[in-house]
Amino acid sequence: MKFNYYNPTRLIFGNGKVKETVDYIPKNIKKVLIHYGSNRMIDDGTIPEIIKKLKAKKIEYKLLGGVVANPRLQKVKEGIELVKDNDIDFILAIGGGSVIDSAKAISAGYNYDGDIWDIFIGKAKVLEENLLPLGVVLSFPATGSEDSRGSVINNEKTGEKRSIGSDYLRPAFSILDPELTRTLPRRQRFAGIVDMFSHILERYMEDNDDYGSMDYMSEGLMKNIIEMAYILKDDELNIKALEEIMLSSTLAHNGILGLGRVQDWASHNIAHELSALYDSIHGETLSIIFPAWMEYVKDVNPKRFIRLGQKVFDLGEDIAPEDTIEAFRTFLRDINMPIYLEDLKIGEDDIELMADKCTKYNDIGSFKKLNKKDIINIYKIAAKSK
Amino acid sequence: MKFNYYNPTRLIFGNGKVKETVDYIPKNIKKVLIHYGSNRMIDDGTIPEIIKKLKAKKIEYKLLGGVVANPRLQKVKEGIELVKDNDIDFILAIGGGSVIDSAKAISAGYNYDGDIWDIFIGKAKVLEENLLPLGVVLSFPATGSEDSRGSVINNEKTGEKRSIGSDYLRPAFSILDPELTRTLPRRQRFAGIVDMFSHILERYMEDNDDYGSMDYMSEGLMKNIIEMAYILKDDELNIKALEEIMLSSTLAHNGILGLGRVQDWASHNIAHELSALYDSIHGETLSIIFPAWMEYVKDVNPKRFIRLGQKVFDLGEDIAPEDTIEAFRTFLRDINMPIYLEDLKIGEDDIELMADKCTKYNDIGSFKKLNKKDIINIYKIAAKSK
Repeated sequence: MKFNYYNPTRLIFGNGKVKETVDYIPKNIKKVLIHYGSNRMIDDGTIPEIIKKLKAKKIEYKLLGGVVANPRLQKVKEGIELVKDNDIDFILAIGGGSVIDSAKAISAGYNYDGDIWDIFIGKAKVLEENLLPLGVVLSFPATGSEDSRGSVINNEKTGEKRSIGSDYLRPAFSILDPELTRTLPRRQRFAGIVDMFSHILERYMEDNDDYGSMDYMSEGLMKNIIEMAYILKDDELNIKALEEIMLSSTLAHNGILGLGRVQDWASHNIAHELSALYDSIHGETLSIIFPAWMEYVKDVNPKRFIRLGQKVFDLGEDIAPEDTIEAFRTFLRDINMPIYLEDLKIGEDDIELMADKCTKYNDIGSFKKLNKKDIINIYKIAAKSK
Repeated sequence: MKFNYYNPTRLIFGNGKVKETVDYIPKNIKKVLIHYGSNRMIDDGTIPEIIKKLKAKKIEYKLLGGVVANPRLQKVKEGIELVKDNDIDFILAIGGGSVIDSAKAISAGYNYDGDIWDIFIGKAKVLEENLLPLGVVLSFPATGSEDSRGSVINNEKTGEKRSIGSDYLRPAFSILDPELTRTLPRRQRFAGIVDMFSHILERYMEDNDDYGSMDYMSEGLMKNIIEMAYILKDDELNIKALEEIMLSSTLAHNGILGLGRVQDWASHNIAHELSALYDSIHGETLSIIFPAWMEYVKDVNPKRFIRLGQKVFDLGEDIAPEDTIEAFRTFLRDINMPIYLEDLKIGEDDIELMADKCTKYNDIGSFKKLNKKDIINIYKIAAKSK
């Protein structure tokens, strides 16, 4: 086992904590870019309250909203221009993973001379000593970007969805106020739950029978997410469950459950192609692809599937890998997630194109190394119920 | 649930990683205090190798060894003088929790004008902006100090053992090289395991039936520690288990399993009085006090004891709190830990004195608030087997 873990993000968690946001902006900051998505955070008073406090502290600000799911490169470029033209020295991202990822990309790009996309396709590196500091107010627990080292951006011109990662992209602080998630639309709420659950699975699915602390702790968090999801299914504003889900988003993806692990991430890459092409909701694409990936790779290490079924889905002694996959799909169906492409009315016409793009730079995954043909097979399994 | 979590310690984990230690010392550092305990880290070549690399980088150094278990205030004062007299600008702590705690106290005290003990008894605060940066090479996984915000020091003149805590006392980096624990004496190894296990329990023992992610993840880590302890019992140099135990020390006490929790810490405080008076090994005092504390407080929330028994000690359906306590003592006995004061040849004469000191500033604990009389009762339960 080996790892190098560095995570200096301050997490401020609790109902009502959004009120303290401006207190965490460093004293020397003069001008803030408020980056956000839809008007939800304006309508519920969050952004107006923050602006009032910025004014009281004589901190100037610029607004840049309109970040959409699968955040667009064009918006990132707009943000970079705004930062440069206005001598902005801090970004405050108010929203979910798309807003945070867009903010991280602005932070990584404002001081880079070329096209920011260079960094996403590996032509240039994140300039770790030259990033714009970033604070987060999380409104949508899902991607874990509030405490993660990554950013995923859609290039709407090339139809590519690519990521960058660096410990220095982690936010300076993240406000985790579960009250802010009360107004979240139901479909997003449950897609977010699938996303965080998948982040644990991507780390957990290792071709290994030598279980340790990472396995036990991951199983614990997955089990709790399932329990909380069922509570929210019937009682969508249950505050205990909203708190647990917000915390889980962060714990699932800040790296603490991936210490020393190989990690897979094939399902994320395969799912990303769906979002890139059809602009599908990230958590919904994972809900379709992850079980299909499982079907395709289960023979590599049936024992790990059996353990997952026993420890997370409570399946008891005598089970096969297929039982785990079925239990996973049952859970996803229970929280009204799509589990086949047909559920999103996506056909099979673009499968080859997506598999091609997915392996453009290299084969993917580690549990089983997957080439273009493998990925075509996985999309086909994902296409429709048998 | 609410919390404010900030942990900027870089963790560098892996066999052989000790070789990279000097690479993590910041570039501007001119003179390092190498702080250590016994000669174990000299004899095994660790400190000589580090000195060679410091010399190659033209970084000066001073040596201060001789830190003992239950680290002494006098040694801290010696370190502070050494730092002041030699313009030392970095401390490298090479050892276990005692060495790291001593180094943290030096860091907290070198710039404070008065007596460093003032900070431990609350007469002064840790000067968070004026700390000396600290790097760690961990040789003895137990206290979690390598990634924690605390330091515990013994005042040998007053017979008091007291702690300080601040996020700014967390080390800049910690090298976690499991190979370094191969030469650890058996008694220390297992006392360390009890210590880390207790750190999880102190957070887990909450008067609450509303279980969540912290419970599930804590149960997972405790279960894994027990499994690894049994492996090491028969195969003391099993590298997988040495790795898992080193990681567990860190995860048990870096705060990630205490997010939003009330936390108890009565057992630690009661155990500290034994170390202060008899210089007993910290993990061994916990091994005696924790089960005794459990017996005394179990009726406050029997359900939590039952859950602990089921999830961590695999006790099955129909159990009582007493079964959990018995399983805990069986585990401790199996790894040759003392479970009563008589096992350490400690009598009952000082019980009142210790209870008095333990509640000198206030009653302790949260699962059940304990006064002097309660603590006398717990020491009596701990005295000998029935």
